[in-house]
Amino acid sequence: MKAGVLFSGGKDSSLAAVLLSRDYTVELNTFVFDSGRRLPAVEKAAMALGFPWHVRTFEEGLLEKAVTMIQSSGYPNDAIQMVHRCALTELSGMYHVLADGTRFDDRVPMLSRDEVQSLQDARQCSYIRPLLGFPRREINSLASRHLRIVCGETSNLENGDYEAEIRDEFRARGEDAGKYFPAFHEQSLVIGTISIHG
Amino acid sequence: MKAGVLFSGGKDSSLAAVLLSRDYTVELNTFVFDSGRRLPAVEKAAMALGFPWHVRTFEEGLLEKAVTMIQSSGYPNDAIQMVHRCALTELSGMYHVLADGTRFDDRVPMLSRDEVQSLQDARQCSYIRPLLGFPRREINSLASRHLRIVCGETSNLENGDYEAEIRDEFRARGEDAGKYFPAFHEQSLVIGTISIHG
Repeated sequence: MKAGVLFSGGKDSSLAAVLLSRDYTVELNTFVFDSGRRLPAVEKAAMALGFPWHVRTFEEGLLEKAVTMIQSSGYPNDAIQMVHRCALTELSGMYHVLADGTRFDDRVPMLSRDEVQSLQDARQCSYIRPLLGFPRREINSLASRHLRIVCGETSNLENGDYEAEIRDEFRARGEDAGKYFPAFHEQSLVIGTISIHG
Repeated sequence: MKAGVLFSGGKDSSLAAVLLSRDYTVELNTFVFDSGRRLPAVEKAAMALGFPWHVRTFEEGLLEKAVTMIQSSGYPNDAIQMVHRCALTELSGMYHVLADGTRFDDRVPMLSRDEVQSLQDARQCSYIRPLLGFPRREINSLASRHLRIVCGETSNLENGDYEAEIRDEFRARGEDAGKYFPAFHEQSLVIGTISIHG
């Protein structure tokens, strides 16, 4: 059975893909707002994992909607959540099984129980979060056994997280994204694998 | 790394053990109230899975406490939850990594986010729920690919679920357990494997 995994190139979505690949035929999917956006680092991460990788483009206007939400609330959470829901909904049109790297202690993006149920019922799909039941310590331990990872801040580490493109849009508008996003938000990027099959 | 899995012989805890065994050295653990209780069906399930199996006995008096809670509330939920917490706490004295077959849509036993955090902090352990991020449909599909399972009701299927021993205690007291437990509670028992390593 094929599973479409939402993939940023970071530790969590990469580990989710690796774990899922023992039971499903994994395909990686990275969503961008701008179809012209290049993601060389994410592409390298996908190649390191060895799974097929697809870049998908959100519908027109979603970036503007996200920026407006952030400006209006002063925080990025609701916008990131909304964008993530859109990615899952889009993906459910392409796969019967969707997955992402959501962890138990993530606050955003995180679908509620009702949202999960409603996504699955409305779109006739299964939504799997392979890391949901793992505490952070075990995720780090598993990641270090399977993946070679570099860490850094969103501002200097280019992965396929929605945040990077939203930050760029603020910059293009001459606005400082720093006032909306947390000062230090550690990101990770996979640069190689140690052993896909543990 | 060794992981101690709470094991009833049923579908969920068996599948959790199988999934976890790709990354951990799994040991199965079944808790009983009465150290003299025999669990031949659970032992067979453990042998079919091929992981070491340990029978652990709860501290004196826990069965009485559970029965009293059920009589007082009229429902088994709080008691099952309490007993499951005791099993996890006991297990955390033996393993640094604990696991069980809790699913996302389970109501009981289910530790809250705070209980999970507090268990892990207080006992310096990791508590993994490998199935938490899988919807029921995928669990059934994975189980059917890895396990040979029989299904039935608690009243006629003997697995290592706490419920069976609590029901027996009611019976021994001349009381009908049926008035406390749901009329039809489907249980499962693993009788073989199809392929441990998917």
